[in-house]
Amino acid sequence: MEVLDVRFPTSRELDGSDAMNPDPDYSAAYVVLHTDGGPDGYGLAFTIGRGNDVQAAAIGALREHLVGRAVPEDAAALAELSATLVGDSQLRWLGPEKGVAHMAIGAVVNAAWDLAARRADRPLWRFLAEMSPEQVAGLVDFRYLTDALTEQDALDILRAAEPGRAERTARMLAEGYRAYTTSPGWLGYADAKLVRLAKQAVADGFDMIKLKVGGDLDDDVRRMKLARETVGKGVRIAVDANQRWDVGTAIEWMRALAPYEPYWIEEPTSPDDVLGHRVIAEALGEIRVATGEHVQNRVIFKQLLQAKAISVLQLDACRVGGINENVAILLLAAKFGVPVCPHAGGVGLCEMVRHLSMFDFVAVSGTDADRTIEWVDHLHEHFTDPAVVRDGRYLAPTAPGFSARMHDATLRRFRYPDGPEWTEEAR
Amino acid sequence: MEVLDVRFPTSRELDGSDAMNPDPDYSAAYVVLHTDGGPDGYGLAFTIGRGNDVQAAAIGALREHLVGRAVPEDAAALAELSATLVGDSQLRWLGPEKGVAHMAIGAVVNAAWDLAARRADRPLWRFLAEMSPEQVAGLVDFRYLTDALTEQDALDILRAAEPGRAERTARMLAEGYRAYTTSPGWLGYADAKLVRLAKQAVADGFDMIKLKVGGDLDDDVRRMKLARETVGKGVRIAVDANQRWDVGTAIEWMRALAPYEPYWIEEPTSPDDVLGHRVIAEALGEIRVATGEHVQNRVIFKQLLQAKAISVLQLDACRVGGINENVAILLLAAKFGVPVCPHAGGVGLCEMVRHLSMFDFVAVSGTDADRTIEWVDHLHEHFTDPAVVRDGRYLAPTAPGFSARMHDATLRRFRYPDGPEWTEEAR
Repeated sequence: MEVLDVRFPTSRELDGSDAMNPDPDYSAAYVVLHTDGGPDGYGLAFTIGRGNDVQAAAIGALREHLVGRAVPEDAAALAELSATLVGDSQLRWLGPEKGVAHMAIGAVVNAAWDLAARRADRPLWRFLAEMSPEQVAGLVDFRYLTDALTEQDALDILRAAEPGRAERTARMLAEGYRAYTTSPGWLGYADAKLVRLAKQAVADGFDMIKLKVGGDLDDDVRRMKLARETVGKGVRIAVDANQRWDVGTAIEWMRALAPYEPYWIEEPTSPDDVLGHRVIAEALGEIRVATGEHVQNRVIFKQLLQAKAISVLQLDACRVGGINENVAILLLAAKFGVPVCPHAGGVGLCEMVRHLSMFDFVAVSGTDADRTIEWVDHLHEHFTDPAVVRDGRYLAPTAPGFSARMHDATLRRFRYPDGPEWTEEAR
Repeated sequence: MEVLDVRFPTSRELDGSDAMNPDPDYSAAYVVLHTDGGPDGYGLAFTIGRGNDVQAAAIGALREHLVGRAVPEDAAALAELSATLVGDSQLRWLGPEKGVAHMAIGAVVNAAWDLAARRADRPLWRFLAEMSPEQVAGLVDFRYLTDALTEQDALDILRAAEPGRAERTARMLAEGYRAYTTSPGWLGYADAKLVRLAKQAVADGFDMIKLKVGGDLDDDVRRMKLARETVGKGVRIAVDANQRWDVGTAIEWMRALAPYEPYWIEEPTSPDDVLGHRVIAEALGEIRVATGEHVQNRVIFKQLLQAKAISVLQLDACRVGGINENVAILLLAAKFGVPVCPHAGGVGLCEMVRHLSMFDFVAVSGTDADRTIEWVDHLHEHFTDPAVVRDGRYLAPTAPGFSARMHDATLRRFRYPDGPEWTEEAR
């Protein structure tokens, strides 16, 4: 097992800037599971700079559960690995099931899935979608979920989606999955750049864009008005406050933006505040409330759904305990009938989440209605199996694995602090 | 700034064993803030073994915010330090405000408070309780709280408690603060040891003991019956499931224990599950629901109070972002009229939380009704200002600071992995 601290100097261009995160250096705590003679497995935790070394150390703390063990190749073995990592009681104390320690489990679990899918010669979404309902339900840790989702509920959902799997797989391969773009909307961009990129987004076939908000109300009203004038009525505009607001502020601010018809408000407040999101959702009525990229685990998602606090669930590939927990989250969303629109961007998130949405379409919810995957067009060149969006749709990945592998040249150049990208800056 | 990985081999004796944590090695990621010429400041994050190195690395990641800076000596400077640490947007991504990254902030903030109190020559509880209501309210980050607690609410609470501060301080110095003991109840102890230690607890003047539960229902019924027979009707018995149960299981299990009159059920399920705790509380009626030692921050506590999901709030000295956030939590509890009964034990928790309860009594809630502090009688010999309990009451600490400082000999002996306690075991 090899763990690398890889950082990209994105703060130099203000790509990724928002009201909470003014100067992120998009980074990855990157893990490779080496095997004898077969392919290796690749995973990562996404961070935004400082602390990526702490995240890497947390991944390293899982070493004893992996090194020297047999490769988990099937659903049962992957479920057992996930349970072993989540169940390490001494490490569990550091969460439990949240933050640095839990994201470390996510990176390792995802790397193990990548490895298993590579050995099976399947892209992850197809590897998952070809499992039986019993195998998929067996991936899930139902602890803390059974008041909302039992194993029987999961089996019912998965069996209901069994007919039509082949047809939906074919549709994904032919048509891909709807995307929306955040590229026009970073808070650090000037108005002219916003307008230019919003026009470009429409020309590129997107039917939804997203703007960052939450810095200054007057600025947001001006930017939202500009964006609406630019894209017209037929294109959805989501807004994203990145947790800047208290409950009351969120309601007032969104009422000021309401004339320009925002489609959803993302992260209006703390991702921990289930009851706060419910109050906001009730107050805002038609404007959807979305969150998820910072939702720490399935227990918070369960409550957001139970409380009808969100109407869009933004699953993240790297925030929770990996694919096993994300399968639980997809099943919860299906149980409550809430569409999953994954968070992406960052480092490798677009590459990974497309697999989860496509698996959801084929084998869990069975629908793509009101669903779309975030698309941010940077850093893809560093991945060996980069996400590709054409005419506003993610193409289905066909290469084996979960697509988190970076090029060796990238790892050499952006290693922190000793890669030339960083040592040359220092000179 | 110096950070040490200190571990005690408590798993050898099963001290601290419970249904979720069978073999903890109680540990501390320990931080010292060195200053020129004055006293140093001491803080720690408590963990239970593996991963203590990750916790220490997370504390180390805060170095740039501390080293070379002026010592924060007053309320305003301590508030600014807390805000700077919590507001580091790149590090915030690792939480936000939860888990390893947030506990690191707690350790450092607490060390800074220790330093300030030492320089003021006051024990922490008196240093805090001598601040004006405006200064205390100014310590709090009200972000995400204002739908439940505004700055004005905080000022109202603090001003209402201003009369009588001197009298209550004198009462603390004369009488101390009520304690309860968990020492009889570890899950790894045989029945005879449970009975012997429960008898001893009553003889020592405690009016409440606590048993660990959640491993096996028949065992728990037998142990609870034994304990009740041993201590009689006049002594309260709390039980603690350490998050073992789902919502439904918690309700069923507690109904089986109800004939033996448990006073509270602690951590019945995931600490993240606000709505689950509410369902349990509604179902159990007279048995109080308690949680807190794993509650990640003020946002979850806010919701537990808003939802009437708990009737005992178990503040922890090291889980959240330090004294500033714990002041927020004390104010929330006072606003909702819920008693605070801190979690203690572990490493140094008894030493620290007594300051917070005494501050609460003198300057926030102004009452000790239904309030008690956990007492576990191990590892105190490692501290320079150890907690002392007599006749079932914590004595008021009088030495300057926040009492987290360990003896130099302890640091040498238990340093991991190179201290003799660990190298000799390995031989």
